[in-house]
Amino acid sequence: MKRTSWMRGMMMVGMLLIAGLVQPASQAQAERPLNLMPWPSSVQAGNGDLHIDASFSVALSGHTEPRLDDAVRRFLRHLSRETGIPSFAKAGASSKATLAIHTDHASKDIQEPGEEESYVLEVTSDGAKLTAPTPLGTLHGLQTFLQLVEAGPNGFDAPVIAIQDQPRFPWRGLMIDVSRHFIPLEVLKRNIDGMEAVKMNVFHWHLSENQGFRIESKKFRKLHEMGSDGMFYTQDDARDLIAYAKQRGIRVVPELDMPGHSTAWFVGYPELASGPGPYGIERKWGIFDPAMDPTNEKLYKFLDELIGEMAKLFPDHYFHIGGDEVNGKQWDANPKIQEFRKAYNPKNNDALQAYFSQRVQKLVTKHGKAVVGWDEVFIPGVPKDIVIQSWRGQASLAQAASQGYRGILSNGYYLDLGWSTARHYAVDPMGGAAANLTPEQQKLILGGESCMWSEYVSAENIDSRIWPRNAAIAERLWSPQSVTDPASMYARMHAISARLELLELTHQKYYRPMLQRIAGPSTPEEFAALRTLADVVEPVKDYAREQLAPAEPTSATPLNRVVDAVPLESDTARRFAELVDKYVAASCHDAGTDARLRSQLTLWRDNDARLEPLTQRSFLVKEVAQTSQDLAALGSSGLAALDFIAKGGGAPDSWRAEQTAAIQQTQKPKAQLLLMPATAVQKLVDAAAAGGSCVGTK
Amino acid sequence: MKRTSWMRGMMMVGMLLIAGLVQPASQAQAERPLNLMPWPSSVQAGNGDLHIDASFSVALSGHTEPRLDDAVRRFLRHLSRETGIPSFAKAGASSKATLAIHTDHASKDIQEPGEEESYVLEVTSDGAKLTAPTPLGTLHGLQTFLQLVEAGPNGFDAPVIAIQDQPRFPWRGLMIDVSRHFIPLEVLKRNIDGMEAVKMNVFHWHLSENQGFRIESKKFRKLHEMGSDGMFYTQDDARDLIAYAKQRGIRVVPELDMPGHSTAWFVGYPELASGPGPYGIERKWGIFDPAMDPTNEKLYKFLDELIGEMAKLFPDHYFHIGGDEVNGKQWDANPKIQEFRKAYNPKNNDALQAYFSQRVQKLVTKHGKAVVGWDEVFIPGVPKDIVIQSWRGQASLAQAASQGYRGILSNGYYLDLGWSTARHYAVDPMGGAAANLTPEQQKLILGGESCMWSEYVSAENIDSRIWPRNAAIAERLWSPQSVTDPASMYARMHAISARLELLELTHQKYYRPMLQRIAGPSTPEEFAALRTLADVVEPVKDYAREQLAPAEPTSATPLNRVVDAVPLESDTARRFAELVDKYVAASCHDAGTDARLRSQLTLWRDNDARLEPLTQRSFLVKEVAQTSQDLAALGSSGLAALDFIAKGGGAPDSWRAEQTAAIQQTQKPKAQLLLMPATAVQKLVDAAAAGGSCVGTK
Repeated sequence: MKRTSWMRGMMMVGMLLIAGLVQPASQAQAERPLNLMPWPSSVQAGNGDLHIDASFSVALSGHTEPRLDDAVRRFLRHLSRETGIPSFAKAGASSKATLAIHTDHASKDIQEPGEEESYVLEVTSDGAKLTAPTPLGTLHGLQTFLQLVEAGPNGFDAPVIAIQDQPRFPWRGLMIDVSRHFIPLEVLKRNIDGMEAVKMNVFHWHLSENQGFRIESKKFRKLHEMGSDGMFYTQDDARDLIAYAKQRGIRVVPELDMPGHSTAWFVGYPELASGPGPYGIERKWGIFDPAMDPTNEKLYKFLDELIGEMAKLFPDHYFHIGGDEVNGKQWDANPKIQEFRKAYNPKNNDALQAYFSQRVQKLVTKHGKAVVGWDEVFIPGVPKDIVIQSWRGQASLAQAASQGYRGILSNGYYLDLGWSTARHYAVDPMGGAAANLTPEQQKLILGGESCMWSEYVSAENIDSRIWPRNAAIAERLWSPQSVTDPASMYARMHAISARLELLELTHQKYYRPMLQRIAGPSTPEEFAALRTLADVVEPVKDYAREQLAPAEPTSATPLNRVVDAVPLESDTARRFAELVDKYVAASCHDAGTDARLRSQLTLWRDNDARLEPLTQRSFLVKEVAQTSQDLAALGSSGLAALDFIAKGGGAPDSWRAEQTAAIQQTQKPKAQLLLMPATAVQKLVDAAAAGGSCVGTK
Repeated sequence: MKRTSWMRGMMMVGMLLIAGLVQPASQAQAERPLNLMPWPSSVQAGNGDLHIDASFSVALSGHTEPRLDDAVRRFLRHLSRETGIPSFAKAGASSKATLAIHTDHASKDIQEPGEEESYVLEVTSDGAKLTAPTPLGTLHGLQTFLQLVEAGPNGFDAPVIAIQDQPRFPWRGLMIDVSRHFIPLEVLKRNIDGMEAVKMNVFHWHLSENQGFRIESKKFRKLHEMGSDGMFYTQDDARDLIAYAKQRGIRVVPELDMPGHSTAWFVGYPELASGPGPYGIERKWGIFDPAMDPTNEKLYKFLDELIGEMAKLFPDHYFHIGGDEVNGKQWDANPKIQEFRKAYNPKNNDALQAYFSQRVQKLVTKHGKAVVGWDEVFIPGVPKDIVIQSWRGQASLAQAASQGYRGILSNGYYLDLGWSTARHYAVDPMGGAAANLTPEQQKLILGGESCMWSEYVSAENIDSRIWPRNAAIAERLWSPQSVTDPASMYARMHAISARLELLELTHQKYYRPMLQRIAGPSTPEEFAALRTLADVVEPVKDYAREQLAPAEPTSATPLNRVVDAVPLESDTARRFAELVDKYVAASCHDAGTDARLRSQLTLWRDNDARLEPLTQRSFLVKEVAQTSQDLAALGSSGLAALDFIAKGGGAPDSWRAEQTAAIQQTQKPKAQLLLMPATAVQKLVDAAAAGGSCVGTK
């Protein structure tokens, strides 16, 4: 057995590091780029490769536990999927194994934020060594190894490399709202597989909302029986998911959102509310009036028992009580609460909520857990063990940290808002006001969580709203702060996306079937036309979808439209925009770029004619008929602009004004969609009018 | 409750039929083609549509059983997937239901070939009625209804229609070989879902082979423990699958192949073999020497117990004993067997096998089952209750039928041979010699089974080898013999394929991830180039893959190459060939067709340059580098031919000879792949040389 201790591994890497680190931005141009995501804290590339064939084997040494054996089995299964090699030899002794793993000691039985997660991975042409102080590090290192394996010129291989890696932040989470739309357990599991692949370590399970109470309570059965339309997780389901996540180094933090966002509770227990019942499960989206009655002692008795039950079910040390967005209308309307507000110290609703929060925090503490809550639970004087999850932003976190409170950032990581990945990627928990904190205060910023709110996701399209973009947020939370180049990020994310698809995630696979449903039976040409259009539109951003809805959306609204099918970010449009930027910025317009732009614009110009039969046949295509005509118009404008540029520019102002007006029309959202190439086509029009240093030259 | 009795339904349809039937070929040109597959025995199209929205509901009347309730639940779930409408109202009374179902009486508890499977489906703009004598008919009718629902101009709808339908043959099966490559249970289940969608009713489970004994035996544990590498189905798995199939109107016929194809049995029980052990699980493909010793009385004792155990596990009335391809070498080499052969009546190996078959048939009969076996089990004088499954062809079936024996056809339906769907579709169980049988004898031809032999399939690509092509075979076995138009078949199969993908089948979804693995990390342009090439190649046909293998293939050979990834039939090449046929046959060459051909040929000509970087990086792409160059050459030849045709034809003979020689080079299999557009390009070259009535005109 090769006894490569953790310490020796560290020293060896330390020496290699002297030779200089590989940075993701600079290496993107290398002969064989490393498609690692999140990018490790230090990477030392070498020469040569480790060949991966059916003789590949793994051996474990040092600390052992069933989780590690299971991890190796999963690793080999994933390696099998990555390579198509049907199976691998069982692990022999470390000295014979291709990949020798040494784990020093156990992790904590109940995983905690801040636990050791580091690992060292050295690959030589003879074999690989993975050493880690704890199983958490080993799990991460195995994922890094999987990302190294690629088809090379002579077979599958992993490059010779030395990696030393640990996370920048201890809390790297994904929240999924399973309440507005119920998300089946197997969908959560495949997303947890995705989280493991990108080294996230907290699954935040948003279990209750106005629209659904999704976890079985054996003490208060009417919560899930009357509050979920039968769509809830049993306690066995929860235990199953918790075990599944633990195997992958991932904590599960449950959230029961209160005192607002709780209509679904009141269907079975109207007496907990501040207003008179009866209540029905909320079917619409938004902020609603129902809120728990903070003056009702029976409420605290109820919550004591419920939190006690849930605290036993969920082993994590943290328990999320929500606490966001109480509009106060039920409180204002209730004489008893008005009276309470007068008689006691709290005299306004904020203070009333503070009172409620403190009472609930005591209950959570009583049951052995620390509270996590949205910004609103941060009230001066609350115990220091709470964690504030900020939907408001870094300033809010910084304020809390300056007073000694811990926090995690979610503002900027709301996946449902449809931002570009680059925009999410640019958000740093230490950015903004947090940058001015003292080093001691900065330690209180534990990390962040991406949030998948589920008004417009179903089991069918949710993966596509989370992946691959969540990998970029995972990198933000894991990798050194200096790793920020968007071009490198997009290139590596593109590669990781293909690997994630091998994990059963459906973020690529969902697309074609959804478009096929939209098209109905169609010729290959018609379907290709729909795809061409769908590839360059994006859903409207932020909360515009509600504002632009043709009818008020509810949980019964089918999510079967083009806006539900298309990815949140158009790769085609992004690449077209990059090409246009390159073209108009170049001192000489390149003939090759010109040809590529023309080819793309011609496709768009002619696409509407090809799509037209489908717009007649299917109401779901008819909805985007105007957008299709807009795309044709953009194609024509862009081609005309290129013609002017070829002739030396100087397009008349009247032409430019006309084109600009037409392009502006195409930029108006239609069918809750944005036509993404418009901005880039406008740049071509502007360039055509301006002429330029190199216009007309070859 | 609308009491629409089966008899009334039949009469109503009878009247409608007077107005004339819709045929799939003629209706393919209709405004809204009916994408039904298999095509029903009679279809009467009406005017208007039944609108499908969230108010859609179903009610059952008449005979009830849990299977029908489950069928309705599954039906509503599928309708939800087809439409994206999240859920449907529970079924109320028949008079209120959108779809009122009436089932007259129960099917047999253990499903039998020849049971009543008919149904009548009437759709009006107010609602739909499905009436069937038995649950089997109801199940089929529900699938037909699902195929009627499409996105229309104003929402989802089903056309007004009256369908009366029943199968042509009572035995419509799919065989999957789970022994050469183990196929996980969930993969079998999704294929059974596919079978239900196209009204197949027999799943033939090929459970044992030289390469694996895949079913748990509690009496002889060494069979699965030593003969399967741990990859077997437990008896609980089998019961699970049998129940799953029964819910879908599908029988499960198990096969234990003997006396040959049985090496895996001998790993644990070498004493059953005709030659000395020890034996190991066979890793190669082909026909091997090991065979059971037909002279060994202990063998019959063993088989008596094993067949008894399996007869209890599998409720179907039929039990498949294989019986194919004994090469006789072990028998010839065994003095005891030679002696037996001399002393008793059987004097050659065929007779020896007949002796074995008769002994085993008696055991099967003793345990209450009828024997199914491959052609070889048909020996004059065997009991009349056997069913012969013919891999040899209709002549073999006809011979048996003429002597009063029942048979099913599999020759012509071997999915692994890579035939075009049209070629499978043209094979009719009543074709060839069977056409000359008397009507009474023809009744003995029970139907057929498609066969998925698994040398070159894994869980990853098996769906793509079965689907959507199996739908065409299902149609051959269900629909009237007159339904034969390949163009209509391809159009409808294309539509059905998209629906099958909604059933979790992966025959479309598997493709991109496999190509991504082959490519490794790649730019969108590189990947598109790989896809363009992959879209026009097909694996070599029949058994050429073995003959052309670079190294002897085994069960450990990775199935990760282009030949494993590409569909068995290239849609792109088929459509290109159709276009070329239209072009060269037209009295005037059409400018639009010319442009489409040029666009396709230009893409191919230029594709190799785009793919080239990948051929450098990935060994799996490098393997098709020559094929890529060949495609470029075809593109150039085709474009040159079009240029000659545009100029009036008359290309020089020397040019034609040169092009023909070059095209012939591209037609040689490379990397076990065929480059499919070669034949069509040759037609263009011939047309360029020939001139023609309309060459050069517009």
